[in-house]
Parts: sequence; C-alpha cells; structure tokens
Amino acid sequence: MAEYGHGGDIYSQKVEMDYSANINPLGMPEGVKAAICRAVELAAPYPDSACRRLTKALAEAFGKEPEQIICGNGAADLIFQLAYGRKPERALLIAPSFSEYEQALRAAGAEVEYCMLREETGFSFVKEEWEERAEACRPDMAFFCNPNNPTGLAVGKETVRELADFCRKRGIFLVADECFGEFLDVPEDFSILGDLEQFSNVFVLKAFTKMYAMAGVRLGYGFCSDRTVLESMEAARQPWSVSALAQEGGIAALRETEYVSRTKRLIKAQRKFLKDGLERLGLTVWDSQANYLFFKGPEGLKERFLKHGILIRSCANYPGLDGRFFRICVRTEEENRKFLETAGLVMEER
Amino acid sequence: MAEYGHGGDIYSQKVEMDYSANINPLGMPEGVKAAICRAVELAAPYPDSACRRLTKALAEAFGKEPEQIICGNGAADLIFQLAYGRKPERALLIAPSFSEYEQALRAAGAEVEYCMLREETGFSFVKEEWEERAEACRPDMAFFCNPNNPTGLAVGKETVRELADFCRKRGIFLVADECFGEFLDVPEDFSILGDLEQFSNVFVLKAFTKMYAMAGVRLGYGFCSDRTVLESMEAARQPWSVSALAQEGGIAALRETEYVSRTKRLIKAQRKFLKDGLERLGLTVWDSQANYLFFKGPEGLKERFLKHGILIRSCANYPGLDGRFFRICVRTEEENRKFLETAGLVMEER
Repeated sequence: MAEYGHGGDIYSQKVEMDYSANINPLGMPEGVKAAICRAVELAAPYPDSACRRLTKALAEAFGKEPEQIICGNGAADLIFQLAYGRKPERALLIAPSFSEYEQALRAAGAEVEYCMLREETGFSFVKEEWEERAEACRPDMAFFCNPNNPTGLAVGKETVRELADFCRKRGIFLVADECFGEFLDVPEDFSILGDLEQFSNVFVLKAFTKMYAMAGVRLGYGFCSDRTVLESMEAARQPWSVSALAQEGGIAALRETEYVSRTKRLIKAQRKFLKDGLERLGLTVWDSQANYLFFKGPEGLKERFLKHGILIRSCANYPGLDGRFFRICVRTEEENRKFLETAGLVMEER
Repeated sequence: MAEYGHGGDIYSQKVEMDYSANINPLGMPEGVKAAICRAVELAAPYPDSACRRLTKALAEAFGKEPEQIICGNGAADLIFQLAYGRKPERALLIAPSFSEYEQALRAAGAEVEYCMLREETGFSFVKEEWEERAEACRPDMAFFCNPNNPTGLAVGKETVRELADFCRKRGIFLVADECFGEFLDVPEDFSILGDLEQFSNVFVLKAFTKMYAMAGVRLGYGFCSDRTVLESMEAARQPWSVSALAQEGGIAALRETEYVSRTKRLIKAQRKFLKDGLERLGLTVWDSQANYLFFKGPEGLKERFLKHGILIRSCANYPGLDGRFFRICVRTEEENRKFLETAGLVMEER
C-alpha cells in the first residue's frame, strides 16, 4: 500500500483526540446528517451525473452561474481531474503547501517546480519571488493555496488578482485553492471568486469537507468561467463521481448559515487560546487565519503526543520543512484545554 | 455539459418507471440503509484511505487476501484508475459493451481497437475471432465484460481462462469486468476469480452497485494478484476515493446473503416472464443471464415508451449497434406486468 502522508489517519493507530485533520470541531450539522439519512432512500439509482440541484444551490449561494460550477468526490478528486483534464507539461507549486497537487500532477505526467516559502520571511508569500520563479521555469499551470496549508497564512485578493493577471499574460492556468477560505474573518477579502469572469485562466477550488465536517462524505466543488476547462475535467473522470448522499448533504449544508457563524466565532477565539498556550510553552507559532495552527518545536513531538493518545500532524514530509514543524487543528475549548495540558507534559518530558 | 449516454437518467426527464438502469428492483437492503445512516455519525473525519475493514470483509467473503483487493468510488472509478495507472498504448475492447472503458482509455491517451460481436452469431463471444484481432492490433490491455453489457450473455470460465492465458503470453493486461456476475445462476462457473493467483495479468472488476441497489452510494472493488497493479492505481488517484458511508454500506451488504438468493430467484423468474412477453409482441430477445434483457425492435421505441412514463435504454450509441437495439432491466412482477402492458400499447401504436 502507498504510504499515507496526510493528517487524519485515525485508522492505523489508537487515537483519542485527532488534532491532525482540519475538521470543524462542532461536527457535522444535524441538518446535514438528517439530509444524508433521507438521501439513503434515494440512493438505489445512479446519482445525477450533472449534480443539477446541488450546482443550482451553489450558484445561488455564491452568486454565480450553474455553468461555472463543477462538483467532485472531495476537493482532492477535483485536483486530479484538473491535472488529468488539462495535462500540463510543467506546474509551479508553492512549498510548503498541500501535497496532493504534486501527486496529481505527477500522475498526469507533469513536471513539478517549486517556489519555496522561506522561514526567514515567516513563510509568507512573496509575489515577486513567485513571478521570478515562474519566469524562470515557465509553467503552464500553477496551484496556489489560500489560506495556505499548513501555515494558515492568507494572501489578500488584490495580490491574488495581480497573480491571476500575471498568469493570464503568460498562459499559466491558476488553481486558487480556497478550501479553507470559509474560516477567514472576511472570506471575500481574500477570494478571487468575485473576479472569476475576468480570469478565464483561474479555477477556484472549494470543499464542504472542512467547514461542515463532512470529510468522510466526500464533497468538493469548484468554479471556472471557462466552460471548456470544466468539460475537460468531465471528460477525464467517470460520469458518477459524486454520490447521491453527498449531493443531498451539500444542499443541506448550504442552509447552515448560523452554524458557519458559530464555527467562525469558536475558531477565532480558540485559535488565539491555543496559540497563546503553545507560545507560553516556548514554541514558535505562526499567525494562522484558518482553523489550524502551524508551529515549530523539538523533533519527535508527534510520537510524544501520540503516547498520550493525541495525533498531531508532523510536517516533516512537506517539501521545504523538516521534523521540527507541526500542524494542529483548532478544536473546542474543552479539547484545547486538554491538548495544552498534554502539551505541557510533553514539553517537560524533553 | 458532456452528453450523458448511459441508462438511469431520471433527472433530466419525467420518468415513472426506470427500465434503463440495471439495478436490483428489491431496492437497497434495510440492513445496508441502517449501516449507512449509522455511518453518518462517523463521517466527519477523513475516511480510511485503505478501506481496511471493508477490504477484510471482502477478502473473507471471496476467500482472497486483503492485499489482492482494491476499492473504488464505484466500478467506473476503478476503470479510470486502471487506465490512468497502467497507461496502456492500445486497448482491445469487445463491442457492443460497456462504454466507460473507451472513455477512460481515451482520457488516459490510449488507442482503442474493437473486436465486434456480430448479430449473425447472436452477439456471442467467439474466442478465435478475438485472438485474431489481438494478433492483428497488438494491444497491451483488454477489457472483457462477463456477462456482457448490454447483451447479458456470459462466457464460461474455461474460455475466460484460455483468454487470460493467451493474454499473458502476449503481454496483454486483461480486465475481466464481472460486475453483473452475482446475477448468474452459478457465478463461479463464469468467473476467473478462482484462478487469480495463476494470472497476475488479470484484474477482476466487481461492484456493489447493481446487486445491492447502491448505485447512488458509489462502491466498486476489484481483485488482482499482482500488488504492483493495485499500487499503480493508488498512485493515480486521490487517497480518499471511497466515502466512509460507502465503506460501511459495503460491509453491511456482504452480510445480506438471503437478500442475494431472493434477488436471484426473482430475476430468473421475471427475466423469463419479460422475455416471453416481449417475444409474443414479435420482438427479438437475446438469452440474457443477467438482470437485464437485450432486444431488437422498431426504431423510436425509447421515445414511445417515454410518452408512457417508462425509460428504456436505447443502444443506438453502442459501437456495432443502432437505433433498433434496446436494453431493459428486469424488475418486480407487478412492474414487469405494467411494462408488458405498455409494451403492447407501444407496439400497436406503430
């Protein structure tokens, strides 16, 4: 079996608290659960290949046209569809960032180049450096994760727009991965979705997974104003990639506006609580705007936490990072208190 | 949107009875429904990437090793993984047969060759003709659907074994699609699964979709004794292709042995009932061994049935067939009586 290098592996080891996967700690909304259970009664036939009702609901929620929207079996499924559908020769990634871009690109036969985010500049995105790398390696595709995973740092939409413009002029297709965008205070300030019609070379990737705690259901979606891009993705995949259960769950999730507000308030407060706590223990913690925290500490922390039943994400397998970097998700106050208590013990054990 | 050329499109038109998709008419077993609803409570985290519990249950049910098994988001997902994972240069298909092989192969950049099944020989598979075609076009991959879709004709395991042996000697990787195998009287008489260890060049494809009426849940699986084949498929896809809901539904489905027996009795009796009825109306009906019937009639039958609220599958878009060929599934006695009544009306309308 291929080695599993992501967070969330609660199946091959004993875990009491999973801090490695960035899932909403409030759990799946009851309305979504009920919708999925009802959908079981509709799940004997093949699902709607075109996800018509879900697409319509997404179009209304985001003020877009249904023709600009594609749904997939999780955002990761759409990443593979983008790679297989567009068949890029060379792609530029920022590093560290989500590792599935590289797996999908290599599977589709693309060369992968990196623009390294540097610790010296706080792992922040420096547009000029990125453009320099792009001029040097001449990619035809690029992935840009915003807010970035694992750092949690977000780039303002003015900069993303400049990036999209740079890419358009050079024939680079830009995938803006905004899967964690919902957790930002004001998502619109960081999203290029509002400028979609100006940039036919941009695909905006989003997911239900994180905000609605639906990772096990599998549902992602994306926007592009160039219909031929979405058609190339459809040609690269099976007709029934999104289950009937996911389609109904997604429609129900879009109605959960109060749950989203509650989540954002919780995450904002608890992110600060966790960050302050970790800093008091002498760890370097970056200023995440998402539902997870990126920090630097002594090597071997993952194994030491695991002895206490807590799974954290070692970032050792991210290009540009090593065994001193970690990522944890932000959970409920009660869990976070327990986490910090354990962190205290773990740090004393050194 | 890409044109949808399959059965089961109950979403873009008004349909009272769907005879176009080959789904068990008894519906999803209650035990499977309950398992999926329970699984919703477990579906916040990412699903088990390796489908450990489901794979173990499949290994026990089929007397195989877990290492020989891969699960996917429906059998169609695994067809794409096989194409992307193996990257064949040229593939040989029988025609008419399931159309997703060709879509997947073309998406992966393969050339597609056909061995035509001919009406003169009752659309039966003639091994010598297939081997002659293979010698002529020298494929490195082949798909073989048994029982075949849309004809419902099955090929005995001795012949499949000879085919596998022929392929092994010529470096052809053979995908034996046995997705409808469960509906055969004695599935073992037609399956190459028992010889899996002898043929590392064979992949056996199966699905929960049809027998357990779980098409909307999406769950397929496959067997191969060459572990590197399964690893190439894993490398060609996202890590979380099978939802937690599907994994739990599949485990529950494997316990439904009485439901399978009941289904087989129903299908056998009703297939004869439907076939006799259609033949009385002057239609030519092939001797299907699966849960669907393939027949020849006047053009335009699909549209005429649809006026009565019944969707049947026109086979006009299958290579080697035309607008005079149709496929219907076998449903319950009550539905089939109504279907035949309508068929009588439709044939009189000519």
